[in-house]
Amino acid sequence: MSKNPFKVYNDKPTTLDGIYSQAEVGLANRNSGVLLETLALDITPTGSHYLLNHFDVPLLDAENHRLKFSGSFREQLELSIDDIKALPALTMPVTMECAGNGRAGISPRSHSMPWVYEAVSTSEWTGTKLASLIDQACPKNDVVEISFTGADYGYDMGEPHFFGRSLTLAQIKELDILLVYAMNGAPLLPQHGAPLRIIVPGWYGMASVKWLTHIEALTKPYDGYQQVKTYQLKMHKDDPGIPIRNIRVKSLMVPPGVPDWSTRKRFVHAGEVNLVGRAWSGCGVPIETVEVEIAGQWRTANLSEKNDRYAWQKWTYSWQAEPGVYVLRCRARDMNGNVQPLDPPWDQAGFANNAAQQVNVFVGLEKSKVGPLS
Amino acid sequence: MSKNPFKVYNDKPTTLDGIYSQAEVGLANRNSGVLLETLALDITPTGSHYLLNHFDVPLLDAENHRLKFSGSFREQLELSIDDIKALPALTMPVTMECAGNGRAGISPRSHSMPWVYEAVSTSEWTGTKLASLIDQACPKNDVVEISFTGADYGYDMGEPHFFGRSLTLAQIKELDILLVYAMNGAPLLPQHGAPLRIIVPGWYGMASVKWLTHIEALTKPYDGYQQVKTYQLKMHKDDPGIPIRNIRVKSLMVPPGVPDWSTRKRFVHAGEVNLVGRAWSGCGVPIETVEVEIAGQWRTANLSEKNDRYAWQKWTYSWQAEPGVYVLRCRARDMNGNVQPLDPPWDQAGFANNAAQQVNVFVGLEKSKVGPLS
Repeated sequence: MSKNPFKVYNDKPTTLDGIYSQAEVGLANRNSGVLLETLALDITPTGSHYLLNHFDVPLLDAENHRLKFSGSFREQLELSIDDIKALPALTMPVTMECAGNGRAGISPRSHSMPWVYEAVSTSEWTGTKLASLIDQACPKNDVVEISFTGADYGYDMGEPHFFGRSLTLAQIKELDILLVYAMNGAPLLPQHGAPLRIIVPGWYGMASVKWLTHIEALTKPYDGYQQVKTYQLKMHKDDPGIPIRNIRVKSLMVPPGVPDWSTRKRFVHAGEVNLVGRAWSGCGVPIETVEVEIAGQWRTANLSEKNDRYAWQKWTYSWQAEPGVYVLRCRARDMNGNVQPLDPPWDQAGFANNAAQQVNVFVGLEKSKVGPLS
Repeated sequence: MSKNPFKVYNDKPTTLDGIYSQAEVGLANRNSGVLLETLALDITPTGSHYLLNHFDVPLLDAENHRLKFSGSFREQLELSIDDIKALPALTMPVTMECAGNGRAGISPRSHSMPWVYEAVSTSEWTGTKLASLIDQACPKNDVVEISFTGADYGYDMGEPHFFGRSLTLAQIKELDILLVYAMNGAPLLPQHGAPLRIIVPGWYGMASVKWLTHIEALTKPYDGYQQVKTYQLKMHKDDPGIPIRNIRVKSLMVPPGVPDWSTRKRFVHAGEVNLVGRAWSGCGVPIETVEVEIAGQWRTANLSEKNDRYAWQKWTYSWQAEPGVYVLRCRARDMNGNVQPLDPPWDQAGFANNAAQQVNVFVGLEKSKVGPLS
């Protein structure tokens, strides 16, 4: 081997290349991704949980915050944070993923936040069951949907609006939605929706409205921008679209070895390499298998049990790495038989790309032969 | 006015335009910036503090972590986190800024993390004085520098290394450096250097080594990659360069009004607009004045007193906004007479750009005339 073969390998351009605009980089500077190395942990470190905020973070005063129920409810509740904290509390680890995760892998790419793999995280959320509270407010017989509105406000495609979403009464009954005031044992952070948000486990993140101010019982379908104008899977611009809901089956690995600062290509020493990652699917469906592709061969990983319905599962694979250049991939299959595709599924807005992750690695000599600094 | 003049304004391309590579976007997805709206707060919310990590975050075990002193010390200390917590503790708000902040504004831009404005934050750091501990270890007479090495390891330009930096004994005596184990009243987060780091107040962030494992007393100048190969101000590639140290005088404003999701252009209602921002300079030098430019005229902002030596100062300006299109700017002057330039200072690696921030706003009709949703 020459003096530093990793350098030669690293100097070659990657296959995933693109040209991005200042606006996309601006979004990437605001909307932060999880650090993939923290996938080794069950719970994403606070502050490393991915963020996708459409508008500015509203800096709300928890003490004076009120959650207002309006529309076709028999009880027009108005609750303080203390009122909500006095209700039965529940803590639940939930894996959340942004519907736009993987957008950078779709060609041609839609102009929006250019996520590659990093818009997924798991936190422990504490709150009270939303369904019980909706029951308490008692929707009248004419109610078709319940809408949830945040304090975050701005423009999208020329339309000003508060961020809002809706759910049917049946969805509220089926999904284990939490009305949340704490994250990882601490009060919600401003950027994660303080003082109050919902968490809709198993659905992509857009449903988990932050900075929640209003819950309204509607007698006709909700037509808010973030429900009807976006977050729809569309094959082309004029496609009416299918609403995005359940998270698709997916897996990620902690990129092994050590990175190059700017290319993020990886150097790995030959010998035993413990690959580790996470796998998850929508609505609490457990993972059946995770496979790792090394040198064109798919191998079955060890998969941890599903301990928490809505949290990802850990997988590991012990790789006896020999010197060379590799593209590693991983893919999961869930208990419903859904499998990750190898190529990105097409969607004109770049939503729900669950194609298998690719990690480029260069395997050099064994550590014992060259020391830690080679 | 037509139906939605903001849309017409917002559809025009910005002057700050660029073409970015996948590698730059990848860095932006990892290295998260502060949310500029949180500049309204004295302390940046935990998790919104900007991050610039050269390599992967090492996930260290606090309980078994040891800080080792080596080289030309009379006392070869080896300290646990509990040993360090038993030393006199100090909590200090410190404004930290990445040396690469503003890189996206420099043309031609160097390939690295494409920060625009958002690599600056203020946290309350808790730890013990580094100078006292170095005294305790007692450097011998032949010592010229002390080096600080982290557990983060990887490649840059083909060179593998642990992240490390050095300081002279005189610098350690002069600067109020803290050996830190807590941030905003909670244990350090993994991505911010857990379980132990240093904070070098008043200097750009590269000096504040994270995941600290070794302190070494050197009898010849330190030649670590991050000290001699980068973090130098250079006019051209072959320029020997000037080491980057003190933070340059700078100010930022909270972008007023509400944003468009993807362009981040702002809509503001006519009437009184309370502009608010922060200003800071290196090594605890107080700010003398902050000026705001509106419609080509510079106006003096109200400046808060300097309460904490190393924390930014708040400024405000009440603007009677009339309908129209504006580019707002702000600039600060410090007590040493340093003023922010209007155009970016040249540096071939895009370091230390403290040019005045520009915020594009469209001022529409008064809120009372059109309601909140226009």
